[in-house]
Amino acid sequence: MTLADQLAQLPTPALVLDERRMLANIERLRRRMAGLGVALRPHLKTAKSVEIARRLLADGTGPATVSTLREAEVFFAAGVRDILYAVGIAPQKLPRVAALRAAGCDLAVILDTPAQADAVVAASRAAGAPIPALIEIDCDGHRGGIAPDDDLLLDIGRRLHAGAALRGVLAHAGESYGAVGEAAQAAAAEGERAAAAGAAGRLRAAGLPCPVVSVGSTPTAHAARNLDGVTEVRAGVHTFFDLVMAGIGVCGLEDIALSVLTTVIGHQPARGWILVDAGWMAMSSDRGTASQAVDQGYGLVCDVDGRVFPDLILVSANQEHGLIALRPGSDAALPDLAVGTQLRILPNHACATASQFDHYDVIPAGEGLPLARWDRFGGW
Amino acid sequence: MTLADQLAQLPTPALVLDERRMLANIERLRRRMAGLGVALRPHLKTAKSVEIARRLLADGTGPATVSTLREAEVFFAAGVRDILYAVGIAPQKLPRVAALRAAGCDLAVILDTPAQADAVVAASRAAGAPIPALIEIDCDGHRGGIAPDDDLLLDIGRRLHAGAALRGVLAHAGESYGAVGEAAQAAAAEGERAAAAGAAGRLRAAGLPCPVVSVGSTPTAHAARNLDGVTEVRAGVHTFFDLVMAGIGVCGLEDIALSVLTTVIGHQPARGWILVDAGWMAMSSDRGTASQAVDQGYGLVCDVDGRVFPDLILVSANQEHGLIALRPGSDAALPDLAVGTQLRILPNHACATASQFDHYDVIPAGEGLPLARWDRFGGW
Repeated sequence: MTLADQLAQLPTPALVLDERRMLANIERLRRRMAGLGVALRPHLKTAKSVEIARRLLADGTGPATVSTLREAEVFFAAGVRDILYAVGIAPQKLPRVAALRAAGCDLAVILDTPAQADAVVAASRAAGAPIPALIEIDCDGHRGGIAPDDDLLLDIGRRLHAGAALRGVLAHAGESYGAVGEAAQAAAAEGERAAAAGAAGRLRAAGLPCPVVSVGSTPTAHAARNLDGVTEVRAGVHTFFDLVMAGIGVCGLEDIALSVLTTVIGHQPARGWILVDAGWMAMSSDRGTASQAVDQGYGLVCDVDGRVFPDLILVSANQEHGLIALRPGSDAALPDLAVGTQLRILPNHACATASQFDHYDVIPAGEGLPLARWDRFGGW
Repeated sequence: MTLADQLAQLPTPALVLDERRMLANIERLRRRMAGLGVALRPHLKTAKSVEIARRLLADGTGPATVSTLREAEVFFAAGVRDILYAVGIAPQKLPRVAALRAAGCDLAVILDTPAQADAVVAASRAAGAPIPALIEIDCDGHRGGIAPDDDLLLDIGRRLHAGAALRGVLAHAGESYGAVGEAAQAAAAEGERAAAAGAAGRLRAAGLPCPVVSVGSTPTAHAARNLDGVTEVRAGVHTFFDLVMAGIGVCGLEDIALSVLTTVIGHQPARGWILVDAGWMAMSSDRGTASQAVDQGYGLVCDVDGRVFPDLILVSANQEHGLIALRPGSDAALPDLAVGTQLRILPNHACATASQFDHYDVIPAGEGLPLARWDRFGGW
């Protein structure tokens, strides 16, 4: 059966994963990190799938990064034992952290305030076992973290070291998603490295431990030239890649492993519109390419075999309706796509689009295999 | 236990539903439709909850509108028997439609092309029973539908009448979500009514049946002054209301029944930021107020009891991080909100925010009751 025949069996919209592309993306970053001599701690928030975690993690046990405690619980139940929860800890969440640790998961948290450090100390005391925490370092003004030269660094470090466990420091160059081209991304990577390594140096100079120096984002992980002082790199969206990453040059369109399968349900010929059954409920409302040089609307349209239609994008999305049209200014011809035609749409942001579905329909990497179904989960 | 004490037990982010507000919203539109002498066919796509459907539907069996066949299947299993699937039918979906009908669900579909009509005829023949279809009428250039005076109207009508069942016509004034104020919304409602009633008149003049004349959107349903020729009105987001609806004057902020409970996880005092654990995964990426007079960012911030902080909005959202700040130009003081403080954020678009969660944490309408948990579902 051809791929098109296999996909024709699926109800639409459906989340299609090209396993071969995904494995190549995973291998690309794995080799890069091995070449730089640094550990890779993949972020599992993009995939939220045990099947995919097994392909991302060298031996299945870690190291891994998560964005919710639900992820930590699900992946621990699936055998992952070395997990970093990389969102500033809310004090109320520490009992769940302690419970996972008591069950045998080496779960670490991050924080950037003395109040959080005190809460981790109190929770460690209550649990009768130290909870390890990393101090979040701000390298680019993106969101959380303290500056590497902030007086709070040593204050927080001392509190953790005295009453919990100071695991290290963490930086995330969130602004690198707007850095176009490898040179700009390499500069962002150096800023991320320097901030984290600088903070680690200050902690050590004060006699505090700092075993882990964690940095990362997908753009900086692919562009970093020097990771001196760094012990591990985090990245997540590299698993699938997406139009935002293609737009800043981290990958090509042919590397994007995720697409939404959709069906043509109507036309408005006078307006140049093709209506499909993929709206924002399927694509998400993410408009991450809106600020890039090429705005891809809500996604770039391919035929069912994955061949891109140049200039054909999802220009508008209601809950379950998508409007496909030529991008503004295009002089291409609108393809003739009859009602019932299946198409595939590349997403702006893989994390957001994947989160709209409860499973992947997988085109297996092996030849001649039937489509697979891999569950994914959400929630907190 | 106070409301704040009850909410403090919930892991965050959480989707909080104020049942009292919701019931008032439901009652408001129910009375309005009764006054106009027209049936209400609530859209269940907003809530996707059996508990809420029971409160929306007078006797629990319908009439109801859905946006996916999954919704039709789930609500039929819960006792709803009169369902309109209001997204242009893909031919591939007709076997599922026929199966639901064979099981006793009066499920109708919509379409706007001869190709779809022929597919419905073929599926009716295959099922040995006519599948009812409504013809979608375009009243404002929003997305699908044919113009009321289009020659295709009678062509499609005749095909359906000969080989399936012509149930009627349907219009949706999607552009009314951008119509500010009651007068503009009433004009949109009249456009919607006139288009649908005009198309119905043409079908009947040609000797074709048109028992159902269906119109609706939340703004037009609340503003219509005259529904002559209309048999039913559809609306969905009125169940909860949201900032987009408040922004065009359909409701007040105090009517919004849905909010996202979140916890403060950090601060960037130099930038005027408060970090919380509600990012786009909790709020959705919907920026529906961006084009309104007052841009509410990713949501408007309230204290845990639901009191609005004037000018405090979610200005930025990453996957699990939200940045709260004063809206640009505000001279209000940034409130002092310690790490661990719970807040509630009103959503731009209730349908989108609700879809990010698998359940509602419900503040019951009755006094002194504990919080309830109502499941919701997604998927197709």
